[in-house]
Amino acid sequence: MAGVDYLAFERNKAQFDVNELKIVWAGSREELELTDRISRLVANDPVFRKDDRASLDRKELFKNTLRKAAYAWKKIIELRLTEKEANKLRTFVDQPAFTDLHWGMFVPAIKGQGTDEQQAKWLPLANKMQIIGCYAQTELGHGSNVQGLETTATFDPQTDEFVIHSPTLTSSKWWPGGLGKVSTHAVVYARLITDGQDQGVHGFIVQLRSLDDHLPLSGITVGDIGMKFGNAAYNSMDNGVLSFDHVRIPRNQMLMRVSQVTREGKYVQSSVPRQLMYGTMVYVRQAIVADASTALSRAVCIATRYSAVRRQFGSQNGGLETQVIDYKTQQARLFPLLASAYAFRFVSEWLKWLYTDVTQRLQANDFSTLPEAHACTAGLKSLTTTATADGIEECRKLCGGHGYLTSSGLPELFAVYVPACTYEGDNTVLLLQVARHLVKTISQLGSGKQPVGTTAYLARLEQLSQYQSDVTRAEDWLKPNVVIEAFEARAARMNVAVAQNLSKFSNPEEGFQELSADLVEAAAAHCQLIVVSKFIEKLQQDIPGKGVKQQLQVLCSIYALFLLHKHLGDFLSTGSINQKQGSLANELLRSLYSQVRPNAIALVDAFNHSDHLLGSTLGRYDGNVYPKLYEEAWKDPLNDSVVPDGIRQYVQPILRQQLRNARL
Amino acid sequence: MAGVDYLAFERNKAQFDVNELKIVWAGSREELELTDRISRLVANDPVFRKDDRASLDRKELFKNTLRKAAYAWKKIIELRLTEKEANKLRTFVDQPAFTDLHWGMFVPAIKGQGTDEQQAKWLPLANKMQIIGCYAQTELGHGSNVQGLETTATFDPQTDEFVIHSPTLTSSKWWPGGLGKVSTHAVVYARLITDGQDQGVHGFIVQLRSLDDHLPLSGITVGDIGMKFGNAAYNSMDNGVLSFDHVRIPRNQMLMRVSQVTREGKYVQSSVPRQLMYGTMVYVRQAIVADASTALSRAVCIATRYSAVRRQFGSQNGGLETQVIDYKTQQARLFPLLASAYAFRFVSEWLKWLYTDVTQRLQANDFSTLPEAHACTAGLKSLTTTATADGIEECRKLCGGHGYLTSSGLPELFAVYVPACTYEGDNTVLLLQVARHLVKTISQLGSGKQPVGTTAYLARLEQLSQYQSDVTRAEDWLKPNVVIEAFEARAARMNVAVAQNLSKFSNPEEGFQELSADLVEAAAAHCQLIVVSKFIEKLQQDIPGKGVKQQLQVLCSIYALFLLHKHLGDFLSTGSINQKQGSLANELLRSLYSQVRPNAIALVDAFNHSDHLLGSTLGRYDGNVYPKLYEEAWKDPLNDSVVPDGIRQYVQPILRQQLRNARL
Repeated sequence: MAGVDYLAFERNKAQFDVNELKIVWAGSREELELTDRISRLVANDPVFRKDDRASLDRKELFKNTLRKAAYAWKKIIELRLTEKEANKLRTFVDQPAFTDLHWGMFVPAIKGQGTDEQQAKWLPLANKMQIIGCYAQTELGHGSNVQGLETTATFDPQTDEFVIHSPTLTSSKWWPGGLGKVSTHAVVYARLITDGQDQGVHGFIVQLRSLDDHLPLSGITVGDIGMKFGNAAYNSMDNGVLSFDHVRIPRNQMLMRVSQVTREGKYVQSSVPRQLMYGTMVYVRQAIVADASTALSRAVCIATRYSAVRRQFGSQNGGLETQVIDYKTQQARLFPLLASAYAFRFVSEWLKWLYTDVTQRLQANDFSTLPEAHACTAGLKSLTTTATADGIEECRKLCGGHGYLTSSGLPELFAVYVPACTYEGDNTVLLLQVARHLVKTISQLGSGKQPVGTTAYLARLEQLSQYQSDVTRAEDWLKPNVVIEAFEARAARMNVAVAQNLSKFSNPEEGFQELSADLVEAAAAHCQLIVVSKFIEKLQQDIPGKGVKQQLQVLCSIYALFLLHKHLGDFLSTGSINQKQGSLANELLRSLYSQVRPNAIALVDAFNHSDHLLGSTLGRYDGNVYPKLYEEAWKDPLNDSVVPDGIRQYVQPILRQQLRNARL
Repeated sequence: MAGVDYLAFERNKAQFDVNELKIVWAGSREELELTDRISRLVANDPVFRKDDRASLDRKELFKNTLRKAAYAWKKIIELRLTEKEANKLRTFVDQPAFTDLHWGMFVPAIKGQGTDEQQAKWLPLANKMQIIGCYAQTELGHGSNVQGLETTATFDPQTDEFVIHSPTLTSSKWWPGGLGKVSTHAVVYARLITDGQDQGVHGFIVQLRSLDDHLPLSGITVGDIGMKFGNAAYNSMDNGVLSFDHVRIPRNQMLMRVSQVTREGKYVQSSVPRQLMYGTMVYVRQAIVADASTALSRAVCIATRYSAVRRQFGSQNGGLETQVIDYKTQQARLFPLLASAYAFRFVSEWLKWLYTDVTQRLQANDFSTLPEAHACTAGLKSLTTTATADGIEECRKLCGGHGYLTSSGLPELFAVYVPACTYEGDNTVLLLQVARHLVKTISQLGSGKQPVGTTAYLARLEQLSQYQSDVTRAEDWLKPNVVIEAFEARAARMNVAVAQNLSKFSNPEEGFQELSADLVEAAAAHCQLIVVSKFIEKLQQDIPGKGVKQQLQVLCSIYALFLLHKHLGDFLSTGSINQKQGSLANELLRSLYSQVRPNAIALVDAFNHSDHLLGSTLGRYDGNVYPKLYEEAWKDPLNDSVVPDGIRQYVQPILRQQLRNARL
């Protein structure tokens, strides 16, 4: 970095080697090097400039996005980047675009649901982007309830075609990214109708636009669904609306890996097990958890650096004021988020392993761990995305007034992140799925079915129901087993309690509905246990550098005890800990914040975010905040002229008391 | 309302007369009629259209805002609106503008801090808007710590002038609304220097721009600080940056009501007590609490109506799916916010009374209640704005994916609201002020000083420390005194505990800093008690309509028990209630939600928000959501052409594999 480093004095305080922690965060030295290389490639290229985004209007922003996407694709080809490198490049461009859906949803859908012949036909086209695809599932009237989709695909045996049709306004496809203006093709989900029979929802490859003039094909109405939350953010994406008026596609464009329609119109299941589809869900959700840790780490990095630069109050004898990061109220809000970023990183690493494990088992026709793995990823997606969305906004508030400026980078980060709480499963709906799995697991304990994976602790119900924490001094809370046991006892007791309340209902579904708010809380307790456990397990692995390991242990304790304090009511009301133990945990938390303080800047430096990615006047590596804020202000279009458009027409008539005759 | 009312079946379920509740919400029949009249005036005027705001670029949005402001002022003059009516009109125009600061800060500053002569000179000009003013206090480097401002106003006895100067970059004024492009004048806060002595921060009337050509006067650098969070939102406002290079103003432009500088340059205090200034703070903050209830009620109205329209899952035998509002998880998130909107409304009514009371006492030189009133309004500002900002975002999430569209009205409502958590006192800093007051109050109990107003319960410390709730059945929690006592015991014990911990420090300030996170929680507990108490007191007044009163009682219980559940850890760890009582409260909460359910739509109708104000496709009075969403989508500028700008240039070269030679 060129120029003065105004945070050097903070960096010198660190009690560990930041380069060692960078490797831990990245996952490996190779990963770190790759990230560094691609990150620099994007940051140094003026085409990928993004500091002007907030003031572009919709059309300019969209055009700018298309340009970046084309330019990125050109770079990917020219530099012969691997798939992994190409993905990283798109990540660092950091602007939602149709390519996200093409590579992230369209191609995987064909891979996962297409037959070998279908893959052989479509993947080469898609891989070269000779066609561009999107994933058209949600409709105006249906999101969470996929089985309620209304679009129909009726087989016509006369012509060997499907007729894709939108029977109602609410059946219009609504939201798919890349659909509005760009995609030439889509995987469309529709109710398959054969011989008058509704066979449920299936996927179909449908061409939407001409490859010649890019106009929608006959029978297809398609457009953009309009502006979304925030400055730039997802407004760079053409989320779309689409309806079909009896559009015909050949029979072989139904994705037929799992079930087929024969030439005669017979609906048949293949021998490929349906459960394979769940593997994809596990994959997508583990990626979302990894993204959560990255998004949160960006916000925390900005807020931490700015908190070290900003000074307010506490000047003595005309000296410097106190750095905001030295206030305990700031630490108590910021450091748990710093710890959460690390916690989510490590749990996402573990989820990557889980996905590999599940995939291997599926290939060996072992479905035994699938329900647990599915519930686990659903729960972790819910927990991490909710905490990250809230955490980004908290970081914005921790930057005071200046966090409200788009030049802080935080408003756009928030707006672009929050949909993660809704897409790929609404976070509350997902927790109810976890709850259902836990209740089922508990109910099967009697019949001797052993709980697996993250639910294994439920096998020790008897022991956990006897449990009483033996913490007597604050430092006892530093012991991993003490923390784990308290979290296990709390989660087990909450889930058992709600399962018992459920059993009082004669109609189980009615009970599930009536108690759903309690079920959500019990499921959340289970998910928190998983994150805490995986953080602790990570620390039991070989961590390079004693200083690094010590800091991570401090963060692990902060994460766990912050949760314990936040949900103290759960721990006390289940009798897992007592009042005194709760207050000792809180006491320890305070001293842990003091241990993080000198290391705070190095702990966020370890995320290795470039100034380009952060896009923040407040979060700059060099801490040179105020001159940069000042400089950015003058770039606003409103400052193009000293007296902007509208003053003469609308303000001067007021001042001169000439409104009566003014044309307004 | 014309057309079909798709929510009529919901409105028919209500168990009370919505018109009676409208009067309660508005405060009086007269207030309701006034609101109705002004609201219609704005809604029916095409100039005040606001549905196109999100897609305007900065310059267009700003110009549009100037037009609306000028047009509104013309209407105000033509219709001879009273000050109150004019304020309402600006509220319903619902677009932040320079006029907010002119009327809300500039004029009140002159009234509050100017001498009679100064008022006689400046107020007529300001009242006719022959000058337009703003309030230039915060600087790039200082917000919360007003005493740390760096701008100087040095008296020059030679010329009888003050020299206003910005000695550093961080001393630049930063944030004042209306400053960037519009204001001709400002009340500027600067350190007064007389005879080399720093006399602290004082206010000065400074002309910024020429009344002829609107150009900044000599020595003044002024501009806009750039884009802020969200679509439209505060980007309609010209928040500004301003620096002075030795700008001279006459001595009589220092606001001299409380202290003066004589012709000779002597600094003297007037006989007007400084405490009068605190009266203004109480006024401003009670207005913020009222605004919180309005903003939250808008979000809740949108989310409630849409939750009744939206159906998902639960279809049986091909029938209609379940209305989202019937899910207990939705109710458990939405209804406490509905209750909060009412709670904040009633506490703001009481704050209005408090302001009147304080003002009368101040005029009689009775300062005895001022510290308590000041702490109380600070705390309630913090509590209500934090809860409202979080509540708006929660309502957005409760609307699922569609809440992310700007046409839902929620993204802009959030972005325009959140600064309230930071301005007029950062919410954490304010809670620390409350904590300081509470600790002081407790420490003075021994010396026999009686706590007053909202802290009066602290006089019963002994009784409250003995207290143990006698709840044995869920319905016991319906009794107002049972609820109040539990909240009093919890708040008293938390504050006493932290006060005791503080006394262990030899340096009290060090202790205050070390325990600040605990102090914040104890202060919040006290503030929650106030809101609950004032809701209960409101219900002890004469409420017209038995059905209305019953519903409000249900909402009051929901508000209190929701808080109790959320902060169960506090109640249990202080021993104010036991585990069983906590779980009974939760049980009661569920049945209360069922009682709200049939009345939900009527309860939000009572806010009396026009469709124009809500600006929401999802929150329409008639519930005709989907056709409106669909219609709005097509208005996006990106849909101006079927194949938008950028496709030929950037997408077709990809599809045709012609990137190599494309100009990107």
